[in-house]
Amino acid sequence: MNINLKNLIIIRDQDGFSNFIQFPFFRKSFCFRRLSYLENKFQLHVLLNELRELHEQKGVSHRDFYNIRKVDTHIHAASSMNQKHLLRFIKKKIKKEADSVVLEIAGEKVTMKEVFKRMGIDSYDLSVDVLDVHADRNTFHRFDKFNTKYNPVGESNLREIFIKTDNFVGGKYFAEVLKEVLSDLEDSKYQHAEPRLSIYGRSKKEWDNLAKWALTHDVWSPNARWLIQIPRLYDVYRSKNMVKNFDDMLDNLFTPLFEVTNDPSSHPELHLFLQQVSGIDSVDDESKHEFVHFDRSTPCPPQYCDLENPPYNYYLFYMYANICALNAFRRARGLNTFALRPHCGEAGHVSHLLTGYLTSESISHGILLRKVPVLQYLYYLTQIGIAMSPLSNNSLFISYQRNPLPEYLQKGLNVSLSTDDPLQFHYTKEALMEEYSIAAQVWKLSSCDMCELARNSVMQSGFEDKVKIHWLGPHYKEEGVLGNDIHRTNVPDIRVSYRHEALVDELNNLFRVQSTLKL
Amino acid sequence: MNINLKNLIIIRDQDGFSNFIQFPFFRKSFCFRRLSYLENKFQLHVLLNELRELHEQKGVSHRDFYNIRKVDTHIHAASSMNQKHLLRFIKKKIKKEADSVVLEIAGEKVTMKEVFKRMGIDSYDLSVDVLDVHADRNTFHRFDKFNTKYNPVGESNLREIFIKTDNFVGGKYFAEVLKEVLSDLEDSKYQHAEPRLSIYGRSKKEWDNLAKWALTHDVWSPNARWLIQIPRLYDVYRSKNMVKNFDDMLDNLFTPLFEVTNDPSSHPELHLFLQQVSGIDSVDDESKHEFVHFDRSTPCPPQYCDLENPPYNYYLFYMYANICALNAFRRARGLNTFALRPHCGEAGHVSHLLTGYLTSESISHGILLRKVPVLQYLYYLTQIGIAMSPLSNNSLFISYQRNPLPEYLQKGLNVSLSTDDPLQFHYTKEALMEEYSIAAQVWKLSSCDMCELARNSVMQSGFEDKVKIHWLGPHYKEEGVLGNDIHRTNVPDIRVSYRHEALVDELNNLFRVQSTLKL
Repeated sequence: MNINLKNLIIIRDQDGFSNFIQFPFFRKSFCFRRLSYLENKFQLHVLLNELRELHEQKGVSHRDFYNIRKVDTHIHAASSMNQKHLLRFIKKKIKKEADSVVLEIAGEKVTMKEVFKRMGIDSYDLSVDVLDVHADRNTFHRFDKFNTKYNPVGESNLREIFIKTDNFVGGKYFAEVLKEVLSDLEDSKYQHAEPRLSIYGRSKKEWDNLAKWALTHDVWSPNARWLIQIPRLYDVYRSKNMVKNFDDMLDNLFTPLFEVTNDPSSHPELHLFLQQVSGIDSVDDESKHEFVHFDRSTPCPPQYCDLENPPYNYYLFYMYANICALNAFRRARGLNTFALRPHCGEAGHVSHLLTGYLTSESISHGILLRKVPVLQYLYYLTQIGIAMSPLSNNSLFISYQRNPLPEYLQKGLNVSLSTDDPLQFHYTKEALMEEYSIAAQVWKLSSCDMCELARNSVMQSGFEDKVKIHWLGPHYKEEGVLGNDIHRTNVPDIRVSYRHEALVDELNNLFRVQSTLKL
Repeated sequence: MNINLKNLIIIRDQDGFSNFIQFPFFRKSFCFRRLSYLENKFQLHVLLNELRELHEQKGVSHRDFYNIRKVDTHIHAASSMNQKHLLRFIKKKIKKEADSVVLEIAGEKVTMKEVFKRMGIDSYDLSVDVLDVHADRNTFHRFDKFNTKYNPVGESNLREIFIKTDNFVGGKYFAEVLKEVLSDLEDSKYQHAEPRLSIYGRSKKEWDNLAKWALTHDVWSPNARWLIQIPRLYDVYRSKNMVKNFDDMLDNLFTPLFEVTNDPSSHPELHLFLQQVSGIDSVDDESKHEFVHFDRSTPCPPQYCDLENPPYNYYLFYMYANICALNAFRRARGLNTFALRPHCGEAGHVSHLLTGYLTSESISHGILLRKVPVLQYLYYLTQIGIAMSPLSNNSLFISYQRNPLPEYLQKGLNVSLSTDDPLQFHYTKEALMEEYSIAAQVWKLSSCDMCELARNSVMQSGFEDKVKIHWLGPHYKEEGVLGNDIHRTNVPDIRVSYRHEALVDELNNLFRVQSTLKL
């Protein structure tokens, strides 16, 4: 039963994006009631079956929460190490590479020693407090302050030196520290990650440079697949005349990808690098005011030369359109494709979630779905993946206790747990386990809940089929119990079967009502 | 200004324990208002000085939250490893020591292999789920269920084999796993612990056996000092005729200690072991109903031969009386003394907190102070240490969000963070850091708050003076800023000075009122 309700709705939608909510029964109250029903039904399921679920888990040899596969579905490479790790790394480099030239400021070459001398601090002075990269009480509802926390010691120079791929040292230090993170992942064996690396769209060379960086420094791990994050910064480049219009930016972003797909030998390193890339993310502060509206009157990209940033939906639509075409091309050539997995519904207007629904394979955050029952119900029905990071939200947009994750999980939305920025949020060496631990404790999750979250994370991730088969079982794509192998996932069949039946019930219910109404 | 308000109140108290609340101004409303005042004053302090505190911390070279000393002030040795650790250890032993005799059941010697064969599981079957030692939703308000979780796979035999000091294998396995925990502590360098080992009071030999166990297996670490926990289980021993009256139990508990103090050569091993013991804890389920009341009519220990357990207050009073005498004796002989640091105010009647206040150097839990403003205010005025374990409380008595720790901290009570039972509550390899992380995230603690908690934990701990001098600075016993060395504690002087001034203000206020009333 592989009905794609998403398409069904898009087909019916002739006049923009929001028409489908005119389905007679897709009203706010209807969806709210169905969601409440799902939540209550799940609570009933748990009350009746909790001990059976546990019993099923105990019946599986060797397998437990610690040795099932978990993927950190949303993590930024630049903040994938924790603060103590970055501090140690920087201290080591100050000691061992004091005389290396690391920057060029106004034509003058500056050594590592010199950089820190100019800041007036030496290696011994440095502490986690001085580094000051941890989100604190002052970042709540201040995405701008949060963004500046990426600058160690408040110095953008240090960010440039240590956590950029394209700098004077060819991204050497970033590669080194990232390889330490990847090596820790490999040691953990069962933990995996999908770190985001940045492409900005200021020039067509960015892709080649990034690929060259990855290959030169051999930044690669069986435990990781890359996502490419594209910040929505057209207005910045436009004001600096780096691009003339929005089409320039799209051109910089996508032309190299079409070229390398057409002829791998045109960008041989990029061709190799892309085999490790599984998707594309759109990132930035969603709460920024959007001055431009996206409707019929909005200029097409070649005509879009406004100084103001286009809205979120405009970005996402053109990324979606390009990725669709690109994927069709790549598929035809037998190459891997890219999923669009944007940040969506973290803040700002709820219409972002609508666009995410229409364009994306999965989204990151989605906390605003709590305010939009219609969309929440659609995300449920279509089981779009939502990579949630409650600790990140706790520092930025919604306190931990109010995070909707446990509610989504009860209703049966396809949610996973991710860390977002261990540098800014986490304290221990095991950021993902810390994230799971806090969720388990604060929300009193059962072992079964946790294993379900972990299984969702693997499903949502961009690891290849053969890897997922190894981790989840050969039939993982089948629906319901058929697709579950408790010996690998530690998720009881009772739970999987409950989820499947609940979803089928909802869909049946909908189609029955629809046919009654003779739509 | 070393006024001991506690003594002041006890001296005035001629007629039982509770008279002091008849002080004219020690009424519930008065104390509640003073506590609210302290809470508000602290919030004002933070609003005005938060950035200055941070600035002071940044001004200190090298020092940050990660490299200040922290003591896990309340942790049970038997559950000091996490569940994954214990699982690995058991699996290793099944493989490597399959043929060792580990139990004697009804005269029959049983090997490790045989034990697991009888349970119908082999090494490969074992998982964290099967081990089933983690507290879950079903332990909330069920201390009895929580206690049975100490039995791996629900088998008391496994508890006997792996986490007891006095068993067929002479506590070999417990010693081994504990040494692994201690070695991890040493690796962490800045983390320390005060694990509880059990003495029951069933026989006079227990102390010698425990000492022998520790010395034989060389269970010792510079990062740990022992506390001895005494379960309140008189009724169990009495019903099995192991003791005839309460005095028998006290005799078993304290006579060996007096003997070894009088003549170290009478128990040479115990003499050595006691140098690593810093205090005595009283443990059990405080929420159990107390059938007997402690008043003038309660028989003295030699006459106490009731089958019912004496109440908490009775236990504590006689432990206190014995420890007082013992300490005076030991002090006279130049030996180390023992602090009484009972579990207190976790559940049950609030009078426990009153007894704790009158008898103890510090207490564990104290969550019920939230319901008794008078006692809370007295704990504040006398700065009695409170070792809190919010994750433990979350599984047993009060959900994380409602834990009073952040409120106590704001008011200025002397609180520290501790893990209680990593085996039952924690997920990562770094239980204490996990505890700090969750507190920091859920309650939005600042770096200064966390360093203050850590400093409190060292102050409360039973590590020797010379060790505390090394960790906190040579003047750590001085009050206020004089006693703080930010270069070691990373606690800003601004914070310490605020705390001191607030306390002096309160005391001045009290004494002024008292003199006005011409008491």
